[in-house]
Amino acid sequence: MHRFLLALGLLLCLPSRAEEGMWTYDAFPSEAVKKAYGFAPTQAWLDSVRLGSVRLAGGCSASFVSPNGLVMTNHHCIRSCVEDLSSPQKDLLATGFFAPESQSELRCPKVEANQLVEMTDVTARMNTATKGLSGAPFNTALKAEMTKVETECATGPDVRCDVVTLYNGGKYHLYKYRRFQDVRLAFAPEFPMASFGGDPDNFNFPRYGFDVAFVRVWENGQPAKTPHYLPWAKQGVKEGELVFVSGHPGGTERKGSVAELEFQRDVALPYTLLYLSELRGMLREFSQGSPERLRITRSHLRSVENGLKALRGRHQALADSSLLAQKRKAEAELRAKVLAHPKLKASTAGAWDEVTQALELYRPLLPEYRLKEAGDGFQSELFTLARQLVRAADELPKPNAERLREYTEGQLPALRQQLLREAPIPQDLEVATLTFGLNRLRETLGADDSFVKAVLGRESPADLARALVTGTKLQDVKVRQSLLEGGKAAVEASQDPMIVLARKVDTEARAVRKRYEDTVEAVLKRNGERLAQARLAVYGTSGYPDATFTLRLNYGAVKGWQENGRAVAPFTTFGGAWERHTGKDPFKLPDTWLAARGKVPPETPLDMATTNDIIGGNSGSPMVNKDGHVVGLIFDGNLHSLGGRYAYVPETNRAVAVTGVGILAGLEHLYGAQRLVEELRAAQAP
Amino acid sequence: MHRFLLALGLLLCLPSRAEEGMWTYDAFPSEAVKKAYGFAPTQAWLDSVRLGSVRLAGGCSASFVSPNGLVMTNHHCIRSCVEDLSSPQKDLLATGFFAPESQSELRCPKVEANQLVEMTDVTARMNTATKGLSGAPFNTALKAEMTKVETECATGPDVRCDVVTLYNGGKYHLYKYRRFQDVRLAFAPEFPMASFGGDPDNFNFPRYGFDVAFVRVWENGQPAKTPHYLPWAKQGVKEGELVFVSGHPGGTERKGSVAELEFQRDVALPYTLLYLSELRGMLREFSQGSPERLRITRSHLRSVENGLKALRGRHQALADSSLLAQKRKAEAELRAKVLAHPKLKASTAGAWDEVTQALELYRPLLPEYRLKEAGDGFQSELFTLARQLVRAADELPKPNAERLREYTEGQLPALRQQLLREAPIPQDLEVATLTFGLNRLRETLGADDSFVKAVLGRESPADLARALVTGTKLQDVKVRQSLLEGGKAAVEASQDPMIVLARKVDTEARAVRKRYEDTVEAVLKRNGERLAQARLAVYGTSGYPDATFTLRLNYGAVKGWQENGRAVAPFTTFGGAWERHTGKDPFKLPDTWLAARGKVPPETPLDMATTNDIIGGNSGSPMVNKDGHVVGLIFDGNLHSLGGRYAYVPETNRAVAVTGVGILAGLEHLYGAQRLVEELRAAQAP
Repeated sequence: MHRFLLALGLLLCLPSRAEEGMWTYDAFPSEAVKKAYGFAPTQAWLDSVRLGSVRLAGGCSASFVSPNGLVMTNHHCIRSCVEDLSSPQKDLLATGFFAPESQSELRCPKVEANQLVEMTDVTARMNTATKGLSGAPFNTALKAEMTKVETECATGPDVRCDVVTLYNGGKYHLYKYRRFQDVRLAFAPEFPMASFGGDPDNFNFPRYGFDVAFVRVWENGQPAKTPHYLPWAKQGVKEGELVFVSGHPGGTERKGSVAELEFQRDVALPYTLLYLSELRGMLREFSQGSPERLRITRSHLRSVENGLKALRGRHQALADSSLLAQKRKAEAELRAKVLAHPKLKASTAGAWDEVTQALELYRPLLPEYRLKEAGDGFQSELFTLARQLVRAADELPKPNAERLREYTEGQLPALRQQLLREAPIPQDLEVATLTFGLNRLRETLGADDSFVKAVLGRESPADLARALVTGTKLQDVKVRQSLLEGGKAAVEASQDPMIVLARKVDTEARAVRKRYEDTVEAVLKRNGERLAQARLAVYGTSGYPDATFTLRLNYGAVKGWQENGRAVAPFTTFGGAWERHTGKDPFKLPDTWLAARGKVPPETPLDMATTNDIIGGNSGSPMVNKDGHVVGLIFDGNLHSLGGRYAYVPETNRAVAVTGVGILAGLEHLYGAQRLVEELRAAQAP
Repeated sequence: MHRFLLALGLLLCLPSRAEEGMWTYDAFPSEAVKKAYGFAPTQAWLDSVRLGSVRLAGGCSASFVSPNGLVMTNHHCIRSCVEDLSSPQKDLLATGFFAPESQSELRCPKVEANQLVEMTDVTARMNTATKGLSGAPFNTALKAEMTKVETECATGPDVRCDVVTLYNGGKYHLYKYRRFQDVRLAFAPEFPMASFGGDPDNFNFPRYGFDVAFVRVWENGQPAKTPHYLPWAKQGVKEGELVFVSGHPGGTERKGSVAELEFQRDVALPYTLLYLSELRGMLREFSQGSPERLRITRSHLRSVENGLKALRGRHQALADSSLLAQKRKAEAELRAKVLAHPKLKASTAGAWDEVTQALELYRPLLPEYRLKEAGDGFQSELFTLARQLVRAADELPKPNAERLREYTEGQLPALRQQLLREAPIPQDLEVATLTFGLNRLRETLGADDSFVKAVLGRESPADLARALVTGTKLQDVKVRQSLLEGGKAAVEASQDPMIVLARKVDTEARAVRKRYEDTVEAVLKRNGERLAQARLAVYGTSGYPDATFTLRLNYGAVKGWQENGRAVAPFTTFGGAWERHTGKDPFKLPDTWLAARGKVPPETPLDMATTNDIIGGNSGSPMVNKDGHVVGLIFDGNLHSLGGRYAYVPETNRAVAVTGVGILAGLEHLYGAQRLVEELRAAQAP
């Protein structure tokens, strides 16, 4: 390979600059860190931080911070758990929660934690399976081989195996995780404190959120043993200091083709933004109806608002012509290099055109796919459960490799956890969101569309939603269990209205999914892979792969930035939070914080900004110093980081973290969580 | 001029095709109509249809249909009047309204009707005033000269004079209107019937709306004499028949530069779409709170939904790469022709670049401008009144030519009508929308922005909005009148909280407006004018000018189209409406219609589609046959017509109208509006 690259004269072409990069652990640029900061992580350092890192399967990051299974993450990463554990009488989101001893920790109904224990390159095997294929057959073979590899690897319910895509299909790795499904809540602050500043401050800095939570993984009725953990640092960090973030960035498109970026800008993002912003308007107003409505809505609303703001930032980045100009230039350069090399020219023939054509097919298909199959038309937990039951009945009897991916053996523990969770499903909110989805369905596809007519008949969306939600029995776990265990016969016989609806729409929903997968996804994947292989041939792996919710390590420094000519300092303090308190939500500090004046020095650092290259999915990531000791907890990025989906801009892109010092001060002096403080102190390096 | 064009060899280059075109009355292509349909309108025909056409100053079209001031328009054009005349006890939007004699017609608090009586070319005068100027001085001189011309022309409150921009600044005309401010409601159907099918059917066809209303202009306590009116046709139209539409298309950008279209696609439309869709979500949910909330919200909600759907259609048109490719080609062609001609090359030097630069400045300014100055941050009728009073106090003492345009003498009748209208302002809705606006303001500019801090202090948007709305006395017309008449001293002394807020924000709001006008608007206008003059020099006026809410005539035929390979027929019928009735809003027919089965033959045509090139603002336009007799009433376009903002696509772009036959049948057999039927019959041509 090196000779080939040398022949192209390209080995010196390093596309990333400075702190940019979401590096896999097997290709971390230690030398670059050494050059910039005088410190190079060793293999032992890397292994230790990797094994101390945790993935929350729902889409977050976390870390082990004691040998007894204690896990640190963001409050917003386990917010739905706190909500599930709440009731009108006991509102843990409002009050926060602390378990004074481990036995009183509360089990989260649907949280799964994973620890990455092994990574294997399976590119050759995947390539063999898809050799010579394209379009739908390529996609089918790829998925079947993934399922096969994963099934061979998953030797029990405590092992999770995922074939992950790296370098846009240039490489495939098998990631083997230790799986924990008994995850219990140990500490959560009040939601208003975790999200202090609400939507206005979200993705902004200076910031004063205490977005912290601790859970614990249990095994066999005991706290699990986790000998690999990240010890708490004895000292906080200073401005300019080197810090590392280990976590699971959810997705970037830095290597995406220009056509795909334009499609995002013009079609996909506008669709989703409009959907979410109307949903936000509805949910905010709905939540004002009564205190109970507020209680059942605020977590979902916060998620919607967060997603909306993040996607708006992305759209703005793409709407900035300079970003796309830069991408066009890079793509033109790659095309020129590829064309100049006969082998690559042949291997990529037609690839860019096929991408463009697939996107043209996707354009009219996208709303249909999102509404009928991807949930937008049926915004309801109860409907989702119904569909999962209907599909499980169809899929589970099939051979493993022929099933829809989410029903393969490796996915069953997660599926069972979701279907059999003990968590309340508030009817009022279900009616509101399902009405919203059905209205969208009718508006978008038209009142005369046959699918719309099949769903609605002569009902209005609101009346139908109410009838479905009040008529179904699926909120009862026992009902779901009997349908899951009863299989096809039980599901076919069910007269539950939500099951009836899910059955009725499934043929068409599957059809639109198949059309999407065969004509869009398959083409984008296959050509993405061809182009990725060409890019690897030209530039090598000196760059890092786009993020795919797989574990990455990056480095950076504690650092502010210039905003419109004004310097933004890298730290905020407890004193700043007290000043920002107006008494009005979302700038209302809870009593714990108001009472703490005098107990914590006002200059105690609370949040900080760093240059680490992170993105959604990194929430909950530990931040460690060069000793591998915890100095912070990632919970956000600034507005400029949102464009990081497409490009990292070192001057302004900043990660936002709660400081380790602030976390400890809060636990000890505000929340009296002495047990956890002692556990963290005991786990400190000597 | 002709020699010059002949020299360029371009006289034969007619850019428009078939029915495309929103023609001014002084340049109607009668010969083209003759060629296509064997009929050429004469000058007398044109004058007669022009004088029968009416503009509703709020943004709609209409027509005189009797010699006694009877005006036909859409229900949705006078919906706010019907709402203003309603109360919880007497809900005219729900019940509809018919005045059995002219004395019981009800005055609309804020409707103004205009009849175009004279058009004068004032291009030379405007060009002289701005000669050699650019940037802010250009803009200032242009506006001052407009004000001067208008003031000279406006000889009394019943005369309205507007200098209108045609050909993107290539020409300026002075339009002189007869002004009617005493406009009274004679007939309106039920809102659910006018908007039958609601948002799902809006911009769709087949369609079954009865979006019809009749008002009457009065003078001196009597129905006004309107000798120029459009007689009702004795027979309906047939498929393929030639029809004309005379009305006021609000705005098109068919001649806009590519940079401006990209700005719309990437910046302006996404901003507005996100604002409106969240507002829609809020208003829909708000309206569900109680029957009274529904009553006060539904009209506003409908407007928001209509705007949202229209803008979404526009965005989709721009997101279609083929449209922009075509625009890029046309622009490149124009640039090439301009460069090839030394005089034009000199006159347009730097014009495209200046447009691009102005848009770059606009990008970060747009949200600020819209929030602080253009109403988005202060969504409240009461605030708008407060601002008008504050500004009137500042502006009216100035010399006329130095005032903000909306406070010049010619605009005073409209301003007084708005400020002194007797119409209820529902507090609940005001609180909801003002809260919405203030939240947007804070989210967009950030909680730390100085303007935001000045507005909110330590209040929450919701609490501040409630305090302002419940604290102000501006809902009382007498209070407004005394502030208007009291001038600066009265406004300065006022402690009314809404006036206090309007005063507090005015300096900054004016500053951002000035920044917008000086650095964006002025540059776009000046260069738009330069490019327009070059375009006229190259292509002549063989094309039609972009729409600017000025009177236009176009021609077309009654015709369906092919939608995804399926034929859409051009007519719907009363029978179709009965079939579409589901009993659930928005597909619930009112009792008048349900009771009418058997009274009206089901095959009676109700709505129809035609190829006329129309756009928002054309609502309420009369449709006439070649005799100049009324055969329909425009009330919508199909989804494909939304892209007509940028380009007319003859295959699919359709106007949607209520048939004249359907209107008469409805009035006579469903609503028993015998008096109006007789008036229309009496006015029929012999």
